[in-house]
Amino acid sequence: MAALGEQSEEQAMAAQPKPQNRRPISNIVIVVAMQTEALPIVNRFQLTEDPHSPFPRGVPWVRYQGTYKDLNISLVWPGKDPTLGVDSVGTISSALVTYAAIQALQPDLIINAGTAGGFKAKGASIGDVFIVSDCAFHDRRIPIPVFDLYGVGVRKTFEAPNLVKELNLKVGKLSTGDSLDMTQQDESSIIANDATVKDMEGAAIVYVSDLLKVPAMFVKAVTDIIDGDKPTAEEFLQNLAAVTAALDLAVEQVINFINGKCVSEL
Amino acid sequence: MAALGEQSEEQAMAAQPKPQNRRPISNIVIVVAMQTEALPIVNRFQLTEDPHSPFPRGVPWVRYQGTYKDLNISLVWPGKDPTLGVDSVGTISSALVTYAAIQALQPDLIINAGTAGGFKAKGASIGDVFIVSDCAFHDRRIPIPVFDLYGVGVRKTFEAPNLVKELNLKVGKLSTGDSLDMTQQDESSIIANDATVKDMEGAAIVYVSDLLKVPAMFVKAVTDIIDGDKPTAEEFLQNLAAVTAALDLAVEQVINFINGKCVSEL
Repeated sequence: MAALGEQSEEQAMAAQPKPQNRRPISNIVIVVAMQTEALPIVNRFQLTEDPHSPFPRGVPWVRYQGTYKDLNISLVWPGKDPTLGVDSVGTISSALVTYAAIQALQPDLIINAGTAGGFKAKGASIGDVFIVSDCAFHDRRIPIPVFDLYGVGVRKTFEAPNLVKELNLKVGKLSTGDSLDMTQQDESSIIANDATVKDMEGAAIVYVSDLLKVPAMFVKAVTDIIDGDKPTAEEFLQNLAAVTAALDLAVEQVINFINGKCVSEL
Repeated sequence: MAALGEQSEEQAMAAQPKPQNRRPISNIVIVVAMQTEALPIVNRFQLTEDPHSPFPRGVPWVRYQGTYKDLNISLVWPGKDPTLGVDSVGTISSALVTYAAIQALQPDLIINAGTAGGFKAKGASIGDVFIVSDCAFHDRRIPIPVFDLYGVGVRKTFEAPNLVKELNLKVGKLSTGDSLDMTQQDESSIIANDATVKDMEGAAIVYVSDLLKVPAMFVKAVTDIIDGDKPTAEEFLQNLAAVTAALDLAVEQVINFINGKCVSEL
């Protein structure tokens, strides 16, 4: 089949070092799901909303942009749901805005920054910031051979070993699903995914960036302890503002480390 | 906020009859998730694979195209997963390929044709073909006010009352999730969604076509009875080939009815 033939060619190309690996990173897209997570980062880097949106007319997606040191930084956010007025969270909106941003902005690197639930049994505490090593889904169960693996969709993220070491950041695996709560089946899958953090976007964003061959990093700050005593929604809302402050500080450290380096130096 | 402001303008525009409503439909995109579902339709309309894919390099998405009576027909299929070789089923791939196809091909109408599970308690039998009146998700639980509604994401599909009447088709509601199986929580949500059929793509496709203001119709053929005795995966695989034959016959009837008509006449 043509599609598979093409892919083999792509895979062969991926094995060669890419030209952009040898020049400093100049163009970063930060993907953020919620306005509360986005605005501290927008303010920290003095980004402004792009008056000429690169996105199609009618979509609520927003791009903020600016220059910081030697970097062009865009922050894209899927915006508020046109009908309901809440943040367009979850895998579908994030996948779409990541796809559209890569097509329009041709970034050297994607960074998904956001909040996450954490498992204390795996060493997570409120306010911890993790760099993600692997993403997978915990709510795509397809009990047919090979489709089962497709559903889980384990993917390595872009490894940034020098960055992790230099900034002394925690590293953990991420499990993604479209629900804020966690059923028994979700929990079993999350344990099978060996996840320390749980979110609603990550595995979808790395799926898209993998398809389009753009490296993607994940910076996740813990708002709630899933295997703790408090109800997730309540704990999430209570800690959201304070934890986004920790998140945007971590994003600044990551961006400062990236500045002037090429992808292979991270 | 700018994004909401823009949307209000869009909504105001949507209230006016669109110019394309008054001219005959000329450009249709059929979105299909699996190759087994796609090929009978490709053969029936003698579509051929587009040698100049409208999609970015590296993605496995495939477009078949052709002319049938007065219609330009494209069938888009998210292709085989580049790593695992199985059909790229589920909400994320379907949302992405629908988005990319609308951007590239500017269709007058989207038709999502595919197989589905059916509930016998709601009148579904193996081989039945349904036109969908409403789509919603059953695996996006976000127990925070308003976010809960966003998660369920109920949307009316494009109503084609004349088509339904003329072709004497069954009409039912569709519930979408990324798993082939059904947990207790899924079942409760599906009941709350009042669904007769269950699939893995529909609500994502109508989400995208709503954002981009393209009418979307759904033709779903029942491969398995969810509230029956047989395991879903087994029954699905057993009936897949036979039911896709019923599906492509229904798609032909739908296309024949659409030919020469404008959107408002359907």
